[in-house]
Amino acid sequence: MTNLYFEDAEIGTSCTVGAYLVTKNEIIQFAKQYDPMPRHIDEEAAARSVLWGLTASSAHTFSIFILLTTRLQPRLHVLAAMGWDELRLPNAVRPGDELDLDTTVREQRGSKAKSDRGIVRSRVLLRNQRRETVLECIGTVLVARRPEANAPIRIEKTGGP
Amino acid sequence: MTNLYFEDAEIGTSCTVGAYLVTKNEIIQFAKQYDPMPRHIDEEAAARSVLWGLTASSAHTFSIFILLTTRLQPRLHVLAAMGWDELRLPNAVRPGDELDLDTTVREQRGSKAKSDRGIVRSRVLLRNQRRETVLECIGTVLVARRPEANAPIRIEKTGGP
Repeated sequence: MTNLYFEDAEIGTSCTVGAYLVTKNEIIQFAKQYDPMPRHIDEEAAARSVLWGLTASSAHTFSIFILLTTRLQPRLHVLAAMGWDELRLPNAVRPGDELDLDTTVREQRGSKAKSDRGIVRSRVLLRNQRRETVLECIGTVLVARRPEANAPIRIEKTGGP
Repeated sequence: MTNLYFEDAEIGTSCTVGAYLVTKNEIIQFAKQYDPMPRHIDEEAAARSVLWGLTASSAHTFSIFILLTTRLQPRLHVLAAMGWDELRLPNAVRPGDELDLDTTVREQRGSKAKSDRGIVRSRVLLRNQRRETVLECIGTVLVARRPEANAPIRIEKTGGP
């Protein structure tokens, strides 16, 4: 597995992964545990909801986004997630959808407090097989710097004047 | 179960629910499915992480927040989740933590397109037993208007001039 470090996460760097098939069973099982509302677990009730049919819980869609971030190749060496801005779910996830994730680095800056890490902000797009966006946000993560950058600086004699 | 409709969600309306006990087993099981990183599933590796010990996946913390919204009493009659802003996880969730949720309505406005619903934005705080915030955000949901408000308008004759 190739890891990208903070130094590699230049603005514009893109990573893509997918597709992840979402089954009806997974939608219902997830929702029974974390969002047991009829629109996510009961097909008949869901058919009468404002979204006309069974849809994944928002928490489930978010969890699939996080799962796919762990499968990005190459993948940022993330130390911790810091937050998400402008998180939107413009289209529902439905049984049989196949989702892929696309991330693009928008900003990066070194940590002021710790020299071994930096902060990376990326544009996130989770889309289905019809290229409709099902989740979008700006994600902020704490990323390790390349270990060599922290090694003691070796002072080498040169033959120069 | 008492439902609050759009008309009831006045600015300042607060709802609270909890506590939800997070077990080590639940942290590991959730992460194995949606965030299989060592810091969430392997106690020894987690002890060496920047967070010094096993912590819940961000997706897991978010899912517990969504679960608790379904247990609020009284609870908004939510038709669909629209999005979240400024979502932050300032402290990690750890085994044995007991989380409670607090929501306060910040804004509300009627839907321009549909007269049977409105949009409500709330401040969300998920806190642990030490009153540390583990998740905070501004949540935006689509909420049903009270059904009576949609009934056909009855025109009554009055005796006035």
